[in-house]
Amino acid sequence: MENQIIQPRVLKGFRDALPQEQIFRSELIEKITGVYRSYGFVPIDTPVLEYTEILLRKSNGETEKQVFRFEDKGGRDVSMRFDLTVPFARFTAEHKAELAFPFKRYHIAKVWRGEKPQAGRYREFVQCDIDTVGSDSAVCDAEILCAMKAALAAIGIEKIKIHINHRGAFNRFLASLGVQDKSEDVLRSVDKLAKVGKDAVMAELVEATKSEDAAKKILEYIEPSATFDEAIAKMECLCGGAGDDTKRMRQVYQMLEAAGIASSFVLDPSITRGLDYYTGLVYESFLDDLPSIGSVCSGGRYDNLAGLYTKERIPGVGGSIGLDRLMAAMEQLGIAGKKGSYLDAEIFCQDESLLIDAQKAAAALRSLGVKVEVFPEAKKMGQQYALAEAKSVLWGVFVSADGKISVKNLKTREQSDGLTPAAAAKVILAANE
Amino acid sequence: MENQIIQPRVLKGFRDALPQEQIFRSELIEKITGVYRSYGFVPIDTPVLEYTEILLRKSNGETEKQVFRFEDKGGRDVSMRFDLTVPFARFTAEHKAELAFPFKRYHIAKVWRGEKPQAGRYREFVQCDIDTVGSDSAVCDAEILCAMKAALAAIGIEKIKIHINHRGAFNRFLASLGVQDKSEDVLRSVDKLAKVGKDAVMAELVEATKSEDAAKKILEYIEPSATFDEAIAKMECLCGGAGDDTKRMRQVYQMLEAAGIASSFVLDPSITRGLDYYTGLVYESFLDDLPSIGSVCSGGRYDNLAGLYTKERIPGVGGSIGLDRLMAAMEQLGIAGKKGSYLDAEIFCQDESLLIDAQKAAAALRSLGVKVEVFPEAKKMGQQYALAEAKSVLWGVFVSADGKISVKNLKTREQSDGLTPAAAAKVILAANE
Repeated sequence: MENQIIQPRVLKGFRDALPQEQIFRSELIEKITGVYRSYGFVPIDTPVLEYTEILLRKSNGETEKQVFRFEDKGGRDVSMRFDLTVPFARFTAEHKAELAFPFKRYHIAKVWRGEKPQAGRYREFVQCDIDTVGSDSAVCDAEILCAMKAALAAIGIEKIKIHINHRGAFNRFLASLGVQDKSEDVLRSVDKLAKVGKDAVMAELVEATKSEDAAKKILEYIEPSATFDEAIAKMECLCGGAGDDTKRMRQVYQMLEAAGIASSFVLDPSITRGLDYYTGLVYESFLDDLPSIGSVCSGGRYDNLAGLYTKERIPGVGGSIGLDRLMAAMEQLGIAGKKGSYLDAEIFCQDESLLIDAQKAAAALRSLGVKVEVFPEAKKMGQQYALAEAKSVLWGVFVSADGKISVKNLKTREQSDGLTPAAAAKVILAANE
Repeated sequence: MENQIIQPRVLKGFRDALPQEQIFRSELIEKITGVYRSYGFVPIDTPVLEYTEILLRKSNGETEKQVFRFEDKGGRDVSMRFDLTVPFARFTAEHKAELAFPFKRYHIAKVWRGEKPQAGRYREFVQCDIDTVGSDSAVCDAEILCAMKAALAAIGIEKIKIHINHRGAFNRFLASLGVQDKSEDVLRSVDKLAKVGKDAVMAELVEATKSEDAAKKILEYIEPSATFDEAIAKMECLCGGAGDDTKRMRQVYQMLEAAGIASSFVLDPSITRGLDYYTGLVYESFLDDLPSIGSVCSGGRYDNLAGLYTKERIPGVGGSIGLDRLMAAMEQLGIAGKKGSYLDAEIFCQDESLLIDAQKAAAALRSLGVKVEVFPEAKKMGQQYALAEAKSVLWGVFVSADGKISVKNLKTREQSDGLTPAAAAKVILAANE
């Protein structure tokens, strides 16, 4: 047995990331994190494993089927988190005395769902969440939207439409039709509009509301308008007048205008985020160049985040960037990162007697801010160049016993000889600017 | 049932991180990552869950007892990773055709062990690993040590001693005593020297080797020397002459000298990393100011990393920074970070009619590089100041309807009024320098 080879493989629905992919993922995460921080969101951490009772209480049956759940060695019923919102609700309730409200946190981490693996769907994936809890203010709604827009811009996604809506207005509209008790079925049908088309939704709505007239009015309600002003006016008209909900949407939109980003937002009455627990603002985001991939960033406002764990009512608003879907989209659009390392330079090894000199040069270059590694053996130069290329290194460095350095631009093949480390560093770092 | 409150709590041995702790952790991780990258290490990712067969094959019984293992819904025997080395071995074997060798990866991530929870020991913790595989060169040994030393320096840990040794020399020495078949027991006893003292180790060694003379010689062998030169000379003398092992240690030390960091290293023949699978260089690191907390960074060379998963022999050298232990040490030493957010400024809200102006000011300041948030409600100023303090924000900002801004240094209470956003940004950002 001891010498039998075990076939190296990962579990179905899981995957490794090779360096180029992981460098790209890290780059996106770092830029998104930078934006979240600059808006005042702070990081927290919660365990990957939690009591199943904590995670699953509010979930629907679908989630329950998907969760990685087991009994630990102490006989506890535990599960791996399937999102970052439920652990945040538990965290907020548990630590509310230690937090300053309004509390704004970001959490970028893996979650696990035992979904049927399919193209672009994995059982382990990264979510990039922000939430503000402890305030009902429109400022928080607008800030989440601004931060999301800025985060997407920071990773090069400028051509995006963020579709916003208000769940309260939709509910008020359904009440005016007398079908508020059917809202779950209606929301589920409306949610499918983009996928199945108008006729199929109409049929479902007639089935759900038992009224052709109501179904028609719902389809009219969710019809897009040309501008925000038109859309909000129509919404108020069909809901039976202005309400807190439409006032809130006007306020939020005004703030988006003040921030200079309103043109990226659309008031879209068909956005409901069907089965989620939102009660106010809801939103989804679609790439102008690849809408078919679905929403890459979504969220909304809920009036009571932590109600399962505390009697205190804690309202909040938040959202999530689906990093894996976004990466798949950027790959399809040809804008995915292809960097092979973070190095500026590779010190090649032509002669192992120079390895100590190479260490000296490396230390000198590093102290000057150059990111550099030493090729460790006197292998064929072809092999050394291939490694430098795989690592997308621009500069080759050759050392000699007198402490002098040659640097070679591996793209243009231009070479400068007899440099001091300081002069070499200057050449190398100048190219970074 | 639906209205019953669930007590919010985490599992035994697990913990949440509040923002201040998580900001500190993130800062350490970012600095360590920066150093790893600058030495040419690249990130990879592997799944948290793997086939149990893959993870546990090489482990001893102790690990098996500690692992979080279960059957997934597809009937697979799966486990959560308990370190980052075994998944890396599997990764290397699985992807060897896609990697450029020598392959240098970093991986900073959580691992899980169901250990008995005790002070400073948790069931979920972060490891910061680097490994170079595919080369036997001393350059790789030295580079790992340089990178570790630089990573620790980058987070403010300058006063550290890294104890290095060679497993091969120790084995050669035991062979010269004729007790090589007892090496496992001997290594285990020697490893306990710092913990249990010389007399207890002597007793154990006599028991293991059945020879008082051998036990004495082993104690002599692991006795510290004043300098590297003395230590290596004594080692060669007791091992029966110079060998590849001591030659390698001389070479590595020469490279550390060339890099200008040799004074942080000690050749310590008592370092064996007992039960691990190392075959060459081994090392552990102790804080000058808090040696009692144990090694905060350790690792070594193994001659065949992925032997369980491929017939190809892939040598490697690596190591790990134990982030949680290091954080505990820095906390004890009073050098832990206490930052409450990444913000430069808080726009206070005195009057909700100015909230749109606040959004304009926030957008303008952000476009100038100021990290700023808007307090969302006209709460009492005391509450707004308290939030700014909890977030360690230095600058308070007040807006007025004419677009002019006041900025107040919340420490000195100095205030400047009537500024344009550009002037305000200048004041705020100047303080960051």
